[in-house]
Amino acid sequence: MNYKKIDSQDIAFLLSVCGKERVFTGEEIHESYSRDELVNEHLYPEVVVEVLHTEEISQIMKYAYENNIPVTPRGQGTGLAGGAVAIHGGIMVSTVRMNKILELDEENLTLTVEPGVLLLDIVKFVQKNDLFYPPDPGEKSATIGGNISTNAGGMRAVKYGVTRDYIRGLEVVLPDGQIMTLGGKTVKNSSGYGLKDIIIGSEGTLAIVTKAILKLLPLPKKALSLLVPFPDLAQAIETVPKIIKSKSIPTAIEYLEREIILASEEFLGKQFPDKSANAYLLLTFDGNSNEELEEAYEKVAHICLEAGAIDALISNTQERQDAIWSARGAFLEAIKASTTELDECDVVVPRDKVADFVKFNDELQQKIGIKIKGFGHAGDGNLHVYVLRDQLEEKEWQDKLAQAMDAMYAKAKEFGGEVSGEHGIGSAKKPYLEATKGCEYMELLKRIKLAFDPKNLLNPGKVC
Amino acid sequence: MNYKKIDSQDIAFLLSVCGKERVFTGEEIHESYSRDELVNEHLYPEVVVEVLHTEEISQIMKYAYENNIPVTPRGQGTGLAGGAVAIHGGIMVSTVRMNKILELDEENLTLTVEPGVLLLDIVKFVQKNDLFYPPDPGEKSATIGGNISTNAGGMRAVKYGVTRDYIRGLEVVLPDGQIMTLGGKTVKNSSGYGLKDIIIGSEGTLAIVTKAILKLLPLPKKALSLLVPFPDLAQAIETVPKIIKSKSIPTAIEYLEREIILASEEFLGKQFPDKSANAYLLLTFDGNSNEELEEAYEKVAHICLEAGAIDALISNTQERQDAIWSARGAFLEAIKASTTELDECDVVVPRDKVADFVKFNDELQQKIGIKIKGFGHAGDGNLHVYVLRDQLEEKEWQDKLAQAMDAMYAKAKEFGGEVSGEHGIGSAKKPYLEATKGCEYMELLKRIKLAFDPKNLLNPGKVC
Repeated sequence: MNYKKIDSQDIAFLLSVCGKERVFTGEEIHESYSRDELVNEHLYPEVVVEVLHTEEISQIMKYAYENNIPVTPRGQGTGLAGGAVAIHGGIMVSTVRMNKILELDEENLTLTVEPGVLLLDIVKFVQKNDLFYPPDPGEKSATIGGNISTNAGGMRAVKYGVTRDYIRGLEVVLPDGQIMTLGGKTVKNSSGYGLKDIIIGSEGTLAIVTKAILKLLPLPKKALSLLVPFPDLAQAIETVPKIIKSKSIPTAIEYLEREIILASEEFLGKQFPDKSANAYLLLTFDGNSNEELEEAYEKVAHICLEAGAIDALISNTQERQDAIWSARGAFLEAIKASTTELDECDVVVPRDKVADFVKFNDELQQKIGIKIKGFGHAGDGNLHVYVLRDQLEEKEWQDKLAQAMDAMYAKAKEFGGEVSGEHGIGSAKKPYLEATKGCEYMELLKRIKLAFDPKNLLNPGKVC
Repeated sequence: MNYKKIDSQDIAFLLSVCGKERVFTGEEIHESYSRDELVNEHLYPEVVVEVLHTEEISQIMKYAYENNIPVTPRGQGTGLAGGAVAIHGGIMVSTVRMNKILELDEENLTLTVEPGVLLLDIVKFVQKNDLFYPPDPGEKSATIGGNISTNAGGMRAVKYGVTRDYIRGLEVVLPDGQIMTLGGKTVKNSSGYGLKDIIIGSEGTLAIVTKAILKLLPLPKKALSLLVPFPDLAQAIETVPKIIKSKSIPTAIEYLEREIILASEEFLGKQFPDKSANAYLLLTFDGNSNEELEEAYEKVAHICLEAGAIDALISNTQERQDAIWSARGAFLEAIKASTTELDECDVVVPRDKVADFVKFNDELQQKIGIKIKGFGHAGDGNLHVYVLRDQLEEKEWQDKLAQAMDAMYAKAKEFGGEVSGEHGIGSAKKPYLEATKGCEYMELLKRIKLAFDPKNLLNPGKVC
């Protein structure tokens, strides 16, 4: 691609829009802007601009469009697939300073936010108002803009769905600088194509999200967790479809292995409440009365015990729940700390195929001779599987990693699964998306990309 | 547009694919295939084909693509905006015979169906299995394919959302005949653009839906309705945001006026339980225990009485609920029977603007001198407003209708609303979509249309 390189005139333009406090070039660009949380390569944009207003983004995009300069939008950079890395240089537009909560509308149950607001700030704010934003990705310091760009999922998808389900409206800047409002506070909409819906999950390749109207729910009054130890992982995971079939739908169903719990304990320096068993299901329930909760968890506990669980430990105090969930929240960091390098596979499969997929991975690590560790959302079929380098030499690592990834994505496809459950495609997972979906599918994506972005300037090299 | 006219060779091809029992030309084409339920013009396709399999649709599309013949997909034709009318002639592909329920998967809580399955058959089937498909459009004899094409909403959107929220996966045939699977049984998906999501609501202009995987929920064990008479409509509707703000979310909140209730009684020949008041809110609640329901409806009844309601009548038997809801279900037919001709406005506004919108319509009918009747989903902001011709002469009718429609759509836009809440744009609402959204928006829709359908063959002349 033949993009224009940034020159002093371009910088002068950006300074005229944003002032020198928010324009960074050369050595001023922080190292973190050259990568995300997983992709290890460092690729710097030519200039970083920390924008404050939609109008600034619009002006920058218009300029970039006229001058053929690539633009990479970025939130907190907590992604795991390279989606927010400027692989073609150009301008990085960081929305981290657009971090205002604009309006809570209690009559329409909506929250209007700027894209740089952190997920944790949204959660805190709405909770204070006795309201609930259900999507619950593990990375709470991500921005809502990033969550929208990847259609982030999280723990509560079993019962509540994913980010897509909670976006009522978006304001976006299109690649030519045009500002467009899609959807709004309305509950229904059958007016024209679902542009909002195709922008959600498009990883900043179709438009830059500059404002979002989130759908809120009343905050459930009660919640509790159930930690269920099992003799082995297969037995634990095979219980999940039985729970679903029982029509008692927990908020979350996670699976944990002893080994990862121990790593997490070491990483956090905190004790996990139980580590006697090899495998666990961790479930949460929410509702509005104790009776409702009791009925649900007693039924589920019974199903687990019938399926061979060793026990069913109830955590109904905030303190005990926090102890468990903080361990769960540290899994990725704990795994990262335990090895030299890693790569991730974030497939999603139908929930009745999770047990088979985990078993397949176990055999795969034996067969290839590489360490594969995983945890994940058993209740929604989304696994987080990490291939660990440990002490492998570069060539062996690359070979074995490729073998493992190829095998896992092929298996997920066979099971009717998808390449990414919640982390997105970015640049890192593009080959697997193509291998899974075929070239006609990729061609269609490219035609849609060009319908939005005829010059291929917005986050080029990602998704398709 | 320069489409090829159907000739004997084309018919021979269609006969070779489907046999003569399922190919209709000339006089054999039933009158109903020339219109939908509202648009009064009769426009016939050149040939109607009642397909049985995805493969047949694929072959027909491939042939149409090679020969530049327009294709209009159609379900039961219950639409209200002309979406399923072959305005450019060509081939009409009717999916009414593709009416098989293919699989109930209780471990993944999904139902796989062909597009011609009727909504009422889905509802019955899943209920028998103690499961629940929440979308509840008034027209139960619509096909699920039609529901997906318009992103149909219905009564329960207040609590449960719309069709879009319950589509896990689609199989579609693209305009060039290619068969593509999008999504599946997985709960999450962040893999490539949301093609499934842009096809939902695209009114058969981007692809033909040939299979759908629906998301199901456990069937709530209890339900009841609350009929709340108010002295006047404004008071009734103004109570709705207070109910929402109270964080007690009913399944549905409809508003009814005495005049329409009387028309419905006459149309059905059945008595409505109460007609002492000028206006009513009709609410439903569902849940899993009597306690849960009682707490919810008592709180809401209290809010209504405080806001000036005359009474709050509980209907907790199936019989009484059916009496009320069958009246509600007959409103459109009753209004149709009461006049010579009508046109509909299906706007959606934020729910705190419904009262103002209804008041505006009241003033509008005085100002223009034309009858405007309405009912609708107060809980989700979606109004169904009908402009009635009664005894007006053609020219006066067209003039006043245009004045009324222009004014209503402009008002909806001012309130942050959308042209269509659930019925779609079709051909009838295109000018209003353009007036509301502007030409840049329409241009973007057209570019997306061409990304899917470069020859503009699939349902041309609709949406954009």
